[in-house]
Amino acid sequence: MPVADADKLELQAIKGIRIGTALAGIRQNERDDIVVFELSEKTNLAATFTKNKFCAAPVMVAKEHIEVDRPRYLLINSGNANAGLGRLGIDVAQKSCEGLAALTKIEKSGVLPFSTGVIGEPLPLDKLLVALPAALMSLSENNWGKAAKGILTTDTCTKGCTRQFELDGVTATITGIAKGSGMIKPDMATMLAYIATDLAISQHVLQGLLKQAVDLSFNSITVDGDTSTNDAAILMATNELDIKLIKSSDDPRCDTILTELINVCCYLAEAIVKDGEGATKLIKIQVNHAANLSEAREVAYTVAHSPLVKTAFFASDPNWGRILAAVGRANVKQLNVDAISIYLADTCIVKNGMRDSRYTEEQGQAIMNQQEILLTIDLAQGDASTTILSCDLSYDYVKINAEYRS
Amino acid sequence: MPVADADKLELQAIKGIRIGTALAGIRQNERDDIVVFELSEKTNLAATFTKNKFCAAPVMVAKEHIEVDRPRYLLINSGNANAGLGRLGIDVAQKSCEGLAALTKIEKSGVLPFSTGVIGEPLPLDKLLVALPAALMSLSENNWGKAAKGILTTDTCTKGCTRQFELDGVTATITGIAKGSGMIKPDMATMLAYIATDLAISQHVLQGLLKQAVDLSFNSITVDGDTSTNDAAILMATNELDIKLIKSSDDPRCDTILTELINVCCYLAEAIVKDGEGATKLIKIQVNHAANLSEAREVAYTVAHSPLVKTAFFASDPNWGRILAAVGRANVKQLNVDAISIYLADTCIVKNGMRDSRYTEEQGQAIMNQQEILLTIDLAQGDASTTILSCDLSYDYVKINAEYRS
Repeated sequence: MPVADADKLELQAIKGIRIGTALAGIRQNERDDIVVFELSEKTNLAATFTKNKFCAAPVMVAKEHIEVDRPRYLLINSGNANAGLGRLGIDVAQKSCEGLAALTKIEKSGVLPFSTGVIGEPLPLDKLLVALPAALMSLSENNWGKAAKGILTTDTCTKGCTRQFELDGVTATITGIAKGSGMIKPDMATMLAYIATDLAISQHVLQGLLKQAVDLSFNSITVDGDTSTNDAAILMATNELDIKLIKSSDDPRCDTILTELINVCCYLAEAIVKDGEGATKLIKIQVNHAANLSEAREVAYTVAHSPLVKTAFFASDPNWGRILAAVGRANVKQLNVDAISIYLADTCIVKNGMRDSRYTEEQGQAIMNQQEILLTIDLAQGDASTTILSCDLSYDYVKINAEYRS
Repeated sequence: MPVADADKLELQAIKGIRIGTALAGIRQNERDDIVVFELSEKTNLAATFTKNKFCAAPVMVAKEHIEVDRPRYLLINSGNANAGLGRLGIDVAQKSCEGLAALTKIEKSGVLPFSTGVIGEPLPLDKLLVALPAALMSLSENNWGKAAKGILTTDTCTKGCTRQFELDGVTATITGIAKGSGMIKPDMATMLAYIATDLAISQHVLQGLLKQAVDLSFNSITVDGDTSTNDAAILMATNELDIKLIKSSDDPRCDTILTELINVCCYLAEAIVKDGEGATKLIKIQVNHAANLSEAREVAYTVAHSPLVKTAFFASDPNWGRILAAVGRANVKQLNVDAISIYLADTCIVKNGMRDSRYTEEQGQAIMNQQEILLTIDLAQGDASTTILSCDLSYDYVKINAEYRS
């Protein structure tokens, strides 16, 4: 479904971050598939990665490098996930870091590798290495749009967002890009997201801010329930603004920054769902009055992942019985079905566990015809609530995934 | 996908069970949608029902009646699930039992009601009641094929099975029918299954046999991960054979009966998956050497429900990276990814967590082109194993579910 394209957005540069792209021919031979981020020495970086146990080689290597060194370069390729290849994959990820480190005269542990694309095919290291000088030649502060394009796979559009706000009398900027369209049910991170700010924030505080923002954004979306092997979300603070370093999460400025960061992350997360493979509708699922957050999320995801619910949304069919059946099979202790209410937008469909007497099919149909739909499920149990973003299941989801790779 | 049609099978009658069908016009006006089973006084009955918390009104009423009385009639309608309607649904289910009880001069608690079809629409009780006399008029031992047809909804074919075997020098028979095509991930039962035998088995033993057989058959299949509100599996023993009553599960004859019963249930369960909405392939997923049964099933179902894996099977694409990613996100404690092996039929794809060096895409392609595919996942952890049946996700699944009800 339509989503604002980063090409057409003004993505503000972040002083201290330069970006270069190049065509390595890993993905295809028509567009850049290598992206290099160069971070100034003052830049702090926070990262969250996939919880998939088959995490990809670059994820393992990036985690290792973050432990021992201060990241100076991010090296990203699209078209190949470098996952499911065992020792070979690790070697390739390390050699790609070595290649970039040799050209930039740093230690290889200063490079973080990222890959996205098909799983299980060897990543052509030679193609990647050959393209590195061109990527470095093109380094510029103004390449966020090109980077947003370079990291795409089945995405139909780029995703990017900039927020500017006042802090300590200066204008601070947060700019972020992301990719992701299928295999989207992030667990601690999304497919790939790179966010930077010119603020001065310590690594420790930065990590805390990223985790909070990711939980409310990338970790609250789903397209197909599949969690990628390569998910990563990166937040960089370049420390270029003339403000006092934020080194404690108790610093009152953190609230402002977190709010803005959540805005950026939620914008990118929503862009991913809207560009979900084959998606024609954005479904916001809100679960209220759950006994606890974990059960709220269980109900929301059970409904979000039900193929029957998803196809009903695709067909604009107010077939609420499917929603009710999905709630009923969710793994929730002591669900009181006679107290549950379900709303489509402001219209009550199910009241106290059964069809609301005032509900008419026409009301439901009018809401289902819309492109963005709010579904609210009230469990009438406790105080926990959650909101997740999902999309419908269309012919095109099957088409894209039946034809991808072939 | 093609499945043997019960119409063309010789479904053996079970002495003590008569079946009548009629056209009530609940589902459509072209074929019988009411089925009545009449059980002899000697017949014992065992039942398992859905665990969906939004269980349908007929499920609630049937459970209640089983508690207080000996079932003499089963009353089934297709086209309407009588679910999600609160007190109104209960009233309708009870009145339908009262109607049949009045005509047959028994207590209403001797009738078990069953419904299948759309959720949330009031069941037209008047249409059902008007059709009952015609259903009773047509009672015959030889109507198993008609019953198999009368209980269908989106199914494309009837499902039935007969097994005959020797016990205590006499020939015993088990005959069963089932329906189900979508909203199929049974939890303790399947959509609807009715199985009968002329053996003499106590109610207690019968319930134990049914539970064991259901766990290995209907509770081990999935089409779309959605659990129905109306699932029920019924096993009846009419006590018509001249053998000694089986009244203890220690009776050595139970082994023979269980084997035959599992055969019948597995045949019906497989027929449901083969007739899964839009299914073009039958996928058997075997998980071996899991730490425990629960984790084996978690891995099997995570792979089975992955839309990416399902669409790859539909496309005959040996995209094993998607299988690996699904295994990696399964909720399993301490998965050792470096020990995992994955096989398509006899071909090893992943060995010790990475692509088997001898594996070729051509091997994978040859297997994926087949209509029935065995996928084996070896976790190399413990002694537990499980096998479940699943199917692919095709354009037709979306079509059927986007157009059903409209």
